[in-house]
Amino acid sequence: MNNQPTAAIVIIGDEILSGRTQDKNVRFLAEKFSNLGILLKEVRIVRDDEEQIITTVNELRKNHTNVITTGGIGATHDDITASSVAKAFGVKLYKDQEAVEMIDKYIKSKNKEPSAGTFLTANVPEGCELIKNAVSGAPGFTIGNVHVLAGIPEIAQSMFQDLSNKLEKGKKFNSCSIKVNIGEGSIIHILSDAQEKHKNIQIGSYPFEEQNNWRTTIVVRGQDLSEVKLVTQELQDIFNKEQIEFTVEG
Amino acid sequence: MNNQPTAAIVIIGDEILSGRTQDKNVRFLAEKFSNLGILLKEVRIVRDDEEQIITTVNELRKNHTNVITTGGIGATHDDITASSVAKAFGVKLYKDQEAVEMIDKYIKSKNKEPSAGTFLTANVPEGCELIKNAVSGAPGFTIGNVHVLAGIPEIAQSMFQDLSNKLEKGKKFNSCSIKVNIGEGSIIHILSDAQEKHKNIQIGSYPFEEQNNWRTTIVVRGQDLSEVKLVTQELQDIFNKEQIEFTVEG
Repeated sequence: MNNQPTAAIVIIGDEILSGRTQDKNVRFLAEKFSNLGILLKEVRIVRDDEEQIITTVNELRKNHTNVITTGGIGATHDDITASSVAKAFGVKLYKDQEAVEMIDKYIKSKNKEPSAGTFLTANVPEGCELIKNAVSGAPGFTIGNVHVLAGIPEIAQSMFQDLSNKLEKGKKFNSCSIKVNIGEGSIIHILSDAQEKHKNIQIGSYPFEEQNNWRTTIVVRGQDLSEVKLVTQELQDIFNKEQIEFTVEG
Repeated sequence: MNNQPTAAIVIIGDEILSGRTQDKNVRFLAEKFSNLGILLKEVRIVRDDEEQIITTVNELRKNHTNVITTGGIGATHDDITASSVAKAFGVKLYKDQEAVEMIDKYIKSKNKEPSAGTFLTANVPEGCELIKNAVSGAPGFTIGNVHVLAGIPEIAQSMFQDLSNKLEKGKKFNSCSIKVNIGEGSIIHILSDAQEKHKNIQIGSYPFEEQNNWRTTIVVRGQDLSEVKLVTQELQDIFNKEQIEFTVEG
């Protein structure tokens, strides 16, 4: 795969690492990247720790086309993402007038008064570009190839919608699932033969228990839709021949 | 914190990075580590890619008391965790007789016949110790400070139960949540003053929307239970005085 755009995600937040909060941003972003043809290669979940954020962002931005961060861009003492990312790039935070206006417009639309923290989220790194937030006004930002989104899933999703128009796209990843009525241990050779034959396709095998029996979901995934369909058909033919019950999705 | 045991988690699986599957192991393990007094410092989600698994495991095992991996220990071609971890440690896989017996016992208890793949999961790295699996028989393993669990949440949880008895414990992390009827922008100074005063306690601030208004959950977390209670009480007193409505949990 030449010129395949790639991505890494950095989830920033003690609330995820303490087990208090179930992360929902990875799955959302992973699905979006799949559809945009961007290969998500890794995710890191890190603490609200300046040094860890700086190290992680600097390591990942060298190795991936895009780095997305979520979390830590509110107005309180534990929101250190903007300042940490600024330090990762060796620049300073400044109060961005366009960001102030975005926040002000949101506040006025809700007939609210600004609070002590309202305009603190307009402090963004020098040289960044703002990412719109249709949910609560305060923007995210892009600096270099690093895109900084909020942690709250609804806001992260809104920001990603604005951001996604600006990302370089690849060829969409397509997938097809086959559920078979048998444990994966009984079909290892079928799967490994198919994988050996089709090296551009990823064949995944995922056991699950149903009615006290182990069964298997097989996922055929790749960027060439016709090859995904071909491999799926070849597997169906084998399961038919071997009298293995199956259902196909997608 | 001296001699604080730490942990990192490596989630191995293309199905998470493609967005097909919502990870549930991070939250489960994170809660367990909190209760065991083990500080979870980072999580990495990586692909079913040998080089990436080896690099990640070798980097994390140097820097943390414990590394837990989940995923990729089944019998099919895409299950490469055991061989990758063996390579990370520079050892070979071998068929472990105790593992064979564990699997055989499970199969017989279910009145099943073994399949082609049944005993492949008994191939584990030289020098490892097995981790019991009460759900489906095939064990996980510990090598050095790396603990290799299955990806299926029910099995990972069963394995962790066996493993947790062997882990070095620290002082339990305690937390208390206060929900206030006001956005975090209005209480930034209350929170930062409290954080400044109590440096051994982590005070987190998490906005949420309710009935079209932004509200805040404040989480007070630390290993000294009396200090967690003290900080919570101090914040309650301030909210009372400022006539801010709140509720306390935990």
